[in-house]
Amino acid sequence: MLTTHPFDDDHLHEECGIFGASGSEGAAALVALGLHALQHRGQEAAGITSFDGRDFHTHRAMGHVAGNFDRDDVIRALAGDIACGHVRYSTTGETALRNVQPLYAELQSGGFAIAHNGNISNAMRLRRELVRRGSIFQSTSDTETIIHLVATSQYRTLLDKFIDALKQVEGAYALIVMTPDGMIACRDPLGIRPLVMGKLGDTYIFASETVALDVVGATFERSVEPGELVIVQNGELRSIRPFDQVAARPCIFEWVYFSRPDSIVDDHSIYSVRKNIGAQLAIEAPVEADLVIPVPDSGVPAAIGYAQESGIPFELGIIRSHYVGRTFIQPGDKVRHLGVKLKHNANRALIQGKKIVLIDDSIVRGTTSLKIVQMMREAGAAEVHMRIASPPTRHSCFYGVDTPERAKLLAAKLDLGGMTDFIHADSLAFVSIDGLYKALGEAQRAEGRPKYCDACFTGDYPTTLTDHDESSAIDQLAMLDERVN
Amino acid sequence: MLTTHPFDDDHLHEECGIFGASGSEGAAALVALGLHALQHRGQEAAGITSFDGRDFHTHRAMGHVAGNFDRDDVIRALAGDIACGHVRYSTTGETALRNVQPLYAELQSGGFAIAHNGNISNAMRLRRELVRRGSIFQSTSDTETIIHLVATSQYRTLLDKFIDALKQVEGAYALIVMTPDGMIACRDPLGIRPLVMGKLGDTYIFASETVALDVVGATFERSVEPGELVIVQNGELRSIRPFDQVAARPCIFEWVYFSRPDSIVDDHSIYSVRKNIGAQLAIEAPVEADLVIPVPDSGVPAAIGYAQESGIPFELGIIRSHYVGRTFIQPGDKVRHLGVKLKHNANRALIQGKKIVLIDDSIVRGTTSLKIVQMMREAGAAEVHMRIASPPTRHSCFYGVDTPERAKLLAAKLDLGGMTDFIHADSLAFVSIDGLYKALGEAQRAEGRPKYCDACFTGDYPTTLTDHDESSAIDQLAMLDERVN
Amino acid sequence: MLTTHPFDDDHLHEECGIFGASGSEGAAALVALGLHALQHRGQEAAGITSFDGRDFHTHRAMGHVAGNFDRDDVIRALAGDIACGHVRYSTTGETALRNVQPLYAELQSGGFAIAHNGNISNAMRLRRELVRRGSIFQSTSDTETIIHLVATSQYRTLLDKFIDALKQVEGAYALIVMTPDGMIACRDPLGIRPLVMGKLGDTYIFASETVALDVVGATFERSVEPGELVIVQNGELRSIRPFDQVAARPCIFEWVYFSRPDSIVDDHSIYSVRKNIGAQLAIEAPVEADLVIPVPDSGVPAAIGYAQESGIPFELGIIRSHYVGRTFIQPGDKVRHLGVKLKHNANRALIQGKKIVLIDDSIVRGTTSLKIVQMMREAGAAEVHMRIASPPTRHSCFYGVDTPERAKLLAAKLDLGGMTDFIHADSLAFVSIDGLYKALGEAQRAEGRPKYCDACFTGDYPTTLTDHDESSAIDQLAMLDERVN
Amino acid sequence: MLTTHPFDDDHLHEECGIFGASGSEGAAALVALGLHALQHRGQEAAGITSFDGRDFHTHRAMGHVAGNFDRDDVIRALAGDIACGHVRYSTTGETALRNVQPLYAELQSGGFAIAHNGNISNAMRLRRELVRRGSIFQSTSDTETIIHLVATSQYRTLLDKFIDALKQVEGAYALIVMTPDGMIACRDPLGIRPLVMGKLGDTYIFASETVALDVVGATFERSVEPGELVIVQNGELRSIRPFDQVAARPCIFEWVYFSRPDSIVDDHSIYSVRKNIGAQLAIEAPVEADLVIPVPDSGVPAAIGYAQESGIPFELGIIRSHYVGRTFIQPGDKVRHLGVKLKHNANRALIQGKKIVLIDDSIVRGTTSLKIVQMMREAGAAEVHMRIASPPTRHSCFYGVDTPERAKLLAAKLDLGGMTDFIHADSLAFVSIDGLYKALGEAQRAEGRPKYCDACFTGDYPTTLTDHDESSAIDQLAMLDERVN
Repeated sequence: MLTTHPFDDDHLHEECGIFGASGSEGAAALVALGLHALQHRGQEAAGITSFDGRDFHTHRAMGHVAGNFDRDDVIRALAGDIACGHVRYSTTGETALRNVQPLYAELQSGGFAIAHNGNISNAMRLRRELVRRGSIFQSTSDTETIIHLVATSQYRTLLDKFIDALKQVEGAYALIVMTPDGMIACRDPLGIRPLVMGKLGDTYIFASETVALDVVGATFERSVEPGELVIVQNGELRSIRPFDQVAARPCIFEWVYFSRPDSIVDDHSIYSVRKNIGAQLAIEAPVEADLVIPVPDSGVPAAIGYAQESGIPFELGIIRSHYVGRTFIQPGDKVRHLGVKLKHNANRALIQGKKIVLIDDSIVRGTTSLKIVQMMREAGAAEVHMRIASPPTRHSCFYGVDTPERAKLLAAKLDLGGMTDFIHADSLAFVSIDGLYKALGEAQRAEGRPKYCDACFTGDYPTTLTDHDESSAIDQLAMLDERVN
Repeated sequence: MLTTHPFDDDHLHEECGIFGASGSEGAAALVALGLHALQHRGQEAAGITSFDGRDFHTHRAMGHVAGNFDRDDVIRALAGDIACGHVRYSTTGETALRNVQPLYAELQSGGFAIAHNGNISNAMRLRRELVRRGSIFQSTSDTETIIHLVATSQYRTLLDKFIDALKQVEGAYALIVMTPDGMIACRDPLGIRPLVMGKLGDTYIFASETVALDVVGATFERSVEPGELVIVQNGELRSIRPFDQVAARPCIFEWVYFSRPDSIVDDHSIYSVRKNIGAQLAIEAPVEADLVIPVPDSGVPAAIGYAQESGIPFELGIIRSHYVGRTFIQPGDKVRHLGVKLKHNANRALIQGKKIVLIDDSIVRGTTSLKIVQMMREAGAAEVHMRIASPPTRHSCFYGVDTPERAKLLAAKLDLGGMTDFIHADSLAFVSIDGLYKALGEAQRAEGRPKYCDACFTGDYPTTLTDHDESSAIDQLAMLDERVN
Repeated sequence: MLTTHPFDDDHLHEECGIFGASGSEGAAALVALGLHALQHRGQEAAGITSFDGRDFHTHRAMGHVAGNFDRDDVIRALAGDIACGHVRYSTTGETALRNVQPLYAELQSGGFAIAHNGNISNAMRLRRELVRRGSIFQSTSDTETIIHLVATSQYRTLLDKFIDALKQVEGAYALIVMTPDGMIACRDPLGIRPLVMGKLGDTYIFASETVALDVVGATFERSVEPGELVIVQNGELRSIRPFDQVAARPCIFEWVYFSRPDSIVDDHSIYSVRKNIGAQLAIEAPVEADLVIPVPDSGVPAAIGYAQESGIPFELGIIRSHYVGRTFIQPGDKVRHLGVKLKHNANRALIQGKKIVLIDDSIVRGTTSLKIVQMMREAGAAEVHMRIASPPTRHSCFYGVDTPERAKLLAAKLDLGGMTDFIHADSLAFVSIDGLYKALGEAQRAEGRPKYCDACFTGDYPTTLTDHDESSAIDQLAMLDERVN
Repeated sequence: MLTTHPFDDDHLHEECGIFGASGSEGAAALVALGLHALQHRGQEAAGITSFDGRDFHTHRAMGHVAGNFDRDDVIRALAGDIACGHVRYSTTGETALRNVQPLYAELQSGGFAIAHNGNISNAMRLRRELVRRGSIFQSTSDTETIIHLVATSQYRTLLDKFIDALKQVEGAYALIVMTPDGMIACRDPLGIRPLVMGKLGDTYIFASETVALDVVGATFERSVEPGELVIVQNGELRSIRPFDQVAARPCIFEWVYFSRPDSIVDDHSIYSVRKNIGAQLAIEAPVEADLVIPVPDSGVPAAIGYAQESGIPFELGIIRSHYVGRTFIQPGDKVRHLGVKLKHNANRALIQGKKIVLIDDSIVRGTTSLKIVQMMREAGAAEVHMRIASPPTRHSCFYGVDTPERAKLLAAKLDLGGMTDFIHADSLAFVSIDGLYKALGEAQRAEGRPKYCDACFTGDYPTTLTDHDESSAIDQLAMLDERVN
């Protein structure tokens, strides 16, 4: 068996979405709706934890929010005025139910639930030390490290223990934590992963994206700021900033691909930034053609921008099936080689004999682009010009984004000419890194103090990478070993 | 519990898609792929029957093709070189597994499997007579009537029995039949429902739409013609036409909404016809506005046509979630009134302060249009003009399309002004019936001998409606009864 | 995988138990209890059909009554004052859900449900004729033949059609039928399979055995008589006898093994008949020994009878696990040869050095007896004498009992000496056929007009065997064929 | 819904059975068979952990061994030459999958799996202290305390850490532990719970009872001694005794009820001890009667002993259904009061008019005895004399046996006359405590230094009961509180 959606895998994947609601009867129902709106951030598993003033309740499930968290009995069992939830795409930690968040533990101070978007880049080193001292881990998730740091902290109050723990971890984290005393939402000092807050009546809401506020009918208040802990207790909200202040570096890929087009991140509409990138592409890499065709659906806004800037008509040259989820498995051996087009199909009547500009958001391994170009040619396209609405992806992410190892990134292996050949396009162009910053309203990327984390394009990582550095040696040995055998 | 996708239900629904493959080892795998490409024609259930030269094998399941027919064990159990399948959206017959097609029976001549797209409009009368004579029905499906007519026919050969049966039924049918002798594909004399044939090597393929040929890599040969029986036996294909010839009347709604945009039906590309309708709308019902916004996804081609003809920019003002299938249930009571936007969300940053033209394919009850207009206003639209890419839907369909009773059709109850008020739009216009025929390349609708079945718009039914006429009296009594109580 | 209960398969198996209740709110709950008490008569599948005055409701499930029919939602869905049910061990007809009874059909007269214990011995011939005339069968069950005979009968009333059908069938049947007019319980003219009636308040109950009356708290009224139809309509009971009267021949094996020891069949307590057989065995085949040991649990009553008659102490020398149902599968290949004793284990401390008499109810293939004797020897028994509480089983049953083909019956292949050698016993004896009749209070078997059907011992079948006779030729050819290849 | 087996609940329940195999390819298959033979010691859940030299594999399931651990895929996934398993009836710890044993943790030294029969009577106090120091518990099981004690021990080797942990715990434990270095089996210093060892070829086997050795074909070697640790490493076996030696006190209830009759515990055959108790009862409490009737199945051996000693015939007056497992749920409200007899049914034909002696193994709450006596009277018994094959159960067990709180023990509330009245018997007698010791070959109970733990009869607990003593005050407050409200 093989998965048949040939184009699904060539994206970086945001790993998680988180959502919390405090101060609303039946909070879990709000969380379910919010997680549903964040489903694009993680489709493998979901979980919700609620607190009813006495007990914590948790339900976790593999699969989508719909079908698991839309059942009355499930939601009713998640009693209480305060709840938080999580959708995940596996990052570190094999995907087993025990790794599905929110994670929960009973500490001396009572229950402790945590939902985490991001990745702790020194989790392995911390874990080894904790195990040495007698801590027993339940999961393989990096997030559990935070809980054990809290459990074994010598500080007295839960809040001090929590801050003590955060000061030991390195990497990216947007967190929603629930204790018997209330809810804490926080972002790492660099604000790598997003987190916003809103209100719905007296209810405080925290979410990875504004679209989740829209869906539950809440108003957007503001982003949780990098390095900020927002604490909701007894209906009151207060904010503390326990870290040394540093310049923020939010992940620029949220605008390129991760966030939904109807979300607004840090005052920038995702949809209009993507259109801007498309327009910028049309300026930087114009081409004479008959049609501008998006690779659906993520390429659509940039394609509209490109079409409007260039004056070439925007057309649906590739039709996307609504019925290809993550789960379709190709039946049988024989059909495997038929070039099945379950997910995308060429709109042959439109394309035949035309010069086309294809717009996609990014290229990771290049396998999708190759197949799309081929599909266009088989449908009779006269010329196929590929334009990519982000710079070449050359580096892995260690902050909660699923990236293949560097050796599999097309742009890490080949130059522009090599890539053009690889995908069999008549021409290929990426937006420049400065063009990307322009689409976000900057004059250009400020070398040395860039406003965003753009490490996947530039290799300029804003934190140390303890586990990665320690494992490199081991990995190299392991690879050597494999070669020898 | 209530379903939360507020816009899903305001469409006419094609009831079924069918697919057959004859002459290919592992035919069932091809059928699974083909059905997957036809999933938009019916999402409630699917089934495949194969014949291995000795035994027939059937697997039926509620739900989608993916998840049910993409498992190796299922496909392997469906052994044989010949197979056919069916996806359904319940028409007549409650949706239980025993109604899921292909239906199968052991007749004196051996196994007999049948997959049917359409509706037999005198099925109830025929059934009553068959039961009176001792036939025992297994399902509530109108299709089973055909099988019993074959079983009890006095003719000698299976083919003669089958033709005898078809001559007694009235209504719409595209059929794929399998017997130990081979496969028969046929369309009713008016050709109301579509059926095409293709080839993949030596394998003959039959399918409701060409997109299913594309997906399996087959070449499109031609349509099965109205009133034609195509018989594949021992790798040979022959065609017979046992009915009196009449002028064809294929369903015009296939171009409006049912078929996929990348399909070609009777030489007309669905996508370009839809764009034509949009352009025609821009000519018939122009408006001064800032943006043309499609109701996703079915309104997109007409919106592109409208935008290109009018010069008003095409923009994504409504974002559709990829994760709202048919199954999401709204959790909890309280959130029910929050105006949840699980399926569609306004792209607020784009719409605010703008005059917009909304393009949708059709209006059935009007409930969706009302909510969409309201959503646009809440997002700050200055004016909302609704344009519909089909004429007003005023009549029920009795040929295999799920339509509400007439009393629920908005256009059957209200005139244009009333409809405009109902949906709270600043203006509303439908394409004219002649405009629709123009989009299909005709000068206009030929009164008295129109080229298509357009009964849902005009009330001009191309066949008698025996069951409907007989039940009207009963229904009227029943309705009277309800009013009295 | 192999089943591990080595001793389970060496019994004839009663095929079915049936139970009906008419005139009690929530009748299905009574039926569930009744079927549970009849579970020993069939463990593969169960079903209940109820009628609520308007609709029939059916639930069928593979597996036991417990776990399937003890759920509130299942029972609540089986609404109505009248219900009947069935437990089955597959007879004719592969065991698929569609063969699980009660079978149901919608006839011109309305719904028709039927539960059947027995076997129609001319079902195949009748089926062929019905199919030739256009009837379509849903199952492979012989019982469905009766329904089609009713559906196609030329008589006017349902009752006349039903009697018309019964007059065409040959073989054994105890039936409970439900129609919108009420319940009909009947037995074939020879009364081969048992059926009793009882009352619980105003509720009429029909059941295969009295133990099912006990369990629901009903009083035993009388047996339904051979050839009698008992009709319950509007709370009234009436009886008709449409067949020519013949001498009854109830199945004698009900006393030997099928019925529960606490049931009373035709005025004879099963327990005391079995003790009588044991005592008779002690008289006919005495032996000098230290202990009388039953093969649990079916050998216990006869062992008590043997012990009391002989004065040799009764002891539990074989312990039966409570946790070996029909489903335990031996894990792994390697342990297959360890001589596992999952179901029975020797009470080694008791047996060592002793001369023992083993009592079992019957020998079919002899495989169990062989293993039991071996187990006793391995546990240190000095001598092992086997005594069997029925005559040698030499002939197949065609009346609803699962028997291996004759060639596999030990007693059909070997004489007493051969059998003794085969099971490695020091001695072996069966009760005589006259001894068996004595245990039932007769002086002896009345040659020519015996009071019971004892065909499995004597080969004296009380009916013609149409299907068997017709298929013999074919089978013989098939067997010949196998031998040649 | 209510459970319908009215007689199931009036027993003390052994909580667990454990089984380990070291040194056999496919060890898990042996463990599955062994656990199946120990199923009577715990039916709620089962688990197996194996070690393949590199990885530990665990499968846990609610329900029986059969149906969960007899599947090839399950057993194959439990790879390795060493495996241990556990069946449980919930003791401390709610029954959730995370409480099902073997428990597993990754310690600094590597994997650590543990299966435990018994109960740690100071687990709560130890847990509070461990949590205070930062340990996070995964389960509510008392067994997990041992793991955390090992994880946080300051000793250097795993064995020293394990002994350090055991020295801190109080109560009853038979343990099988697996580490990457091998298997450890041990019993608490008093040997309260049983544990035996056997050999099958080169494979070492540990099991709660000898019947599990029989079933896998292993020979019985000897009991693991109280306070002994048996270590199997690299195919070698060694034994250490790290505790101060004290006189053993094995649980006497193993002979009364827990162990299977075909097991031998500490050189005493369970079956013959039970017969001895029955004979002793006949001496201590004779009665003039017609029949001796066991309450099946646990009362059978004592009834045989009573019958042989008294000369009154042994008869099956109560028939037990084979098909009442733990799961049958009474369907519907109405039948609840019918006095259903799903599990046991009177053999009415035998009992009518007779004076009977009923033999049961013990009385806990008395509810079962009441119903059995009533059932005998309804079946027409002239006199009903109850004889119990153990002394009155007056005290709770804190060593891994499920006992109701003292206030619910019939013998803790009433004297003999009161109990006789409560169960409506004509007479009632229990075997004396000295009589029980006599059945085990002692002259009498040695006051001050009894050979067995008989605390449930005498209140003479062989250990301190830390948690119980600490919670008593709290419980008393809670009870007071309840009474006030």
